[in-house]
Amino acid sequence: MAWTRRKVLAIGTKLLAVCCVFRQRSLLASPADAHDADRAAISGVLKAQQTAWNRADVDAFLVGYWQSPELTFSGSNGVSRGWDGVLARYKKNYPNRETMGELNFSDLEFRFLGADAALVLGKWHLKREMGDIGGVFSLVWQKFPQGWKIIHDHTSTVAFPEANP
Amino acid sequence: MAWTRRKVLAIGTKLLAVCCVFRQRSLLASPADAHDADRAAISGVLKAQQTAWNRADVDAFLVGYWQSPELTFSGSNGVSRGWDGVLARYKKNYPNRETMGELNFSDLEFRFLGADAALVLGKWHLKREMGDIGGVFSLVWQKFPQGWKIIHDHTSTVAFPEANP
Repeated sequence: MAWTRRKVLAIGTKLLAVCCVFRQRSLLASPADAHDADRAAISGVLKAQQTAWNRADVDAFLVGYWQSPELTFSGSNGVSRGWDGVLARYKKNYPNRETMGELNFSDLEFRFLGADAALVLGKWHLKREMGDIGGVFSLVWQKFPQGWKIIHDHTSTVAFPEANP
Repeated sequence: MAWTRRKVLAIGTKLLAVCCVFRQRSLLASPADAHDADRAAISGVLKAQQTAWNRADVDAFLVGYWQSPELTFSGSNGVSRGWDGVLARYKKNYPNRETMGELNFSDLEFRFLGADAALVLGKWHLKREMGDIGGVFSLVWQKFPQGWKIIHDHTSTVAFPEANP
């Protein structure tokens, strides 16, 4: 009987230890931490887009987008569809370095929608000799085996106060 | 030995039957079907918003949005924040029936991002004596215990071809 009690006690202690380890691991891997890597990955894609734009490489800029006919881009001309359609829109609206200017993304805000999707809000600004423009964007991201990609982009211009004195 | 073979064959046949039933069930409960109810629920919210707008009831129109300080609306003035902020923006930009006109939503496109989130693209149009306006929207929805709510709205105007003869 005494041996059985010892045995029960030993098993109980082991179970407690296992529970403590699991609790510690789950605390370490909190949802905020779980998305730290995703946030860094998405920021990395946007940083690469900015760098590509600023060397006037629209094709490299497009790498951040989902290479699919289902990709959508909502802007001042309505909805552009498919990777080729979005590429064509960028090349038409920004045909050269003068129109492209120097791009800066700022004020990024992340909202994760489950494990494999995210909404990222932010501001865009083009510094240009011909006149600055900028505004806000809403990007919907999806996590694919090859990484996070933009599956929908809604970009619009905002009139800056200094542009309307 | 012959009996064992028969037994193995019988178990195999039963396993096959079970697999077939499961396959059939998984085919019947395809992801498209799983979201039919969600699609109908979201369409219902948008229909209710349209009806509320067309009786000039902005407060009822706002019921479709997440009643939270985290609600965001990206538009021509940048980002409006919180349910109160979005309500104030609507009341400022559309102070009366003349400016509100008759709202019509069209061309809805649904993309589900996991079980509890969705992206809905569409077009909006205001028929008004003072001049029609319209454009495109991107709505990010989340499913709460009380139903589907818009957690982010990016709305922008599109110049219609007839407005630029």
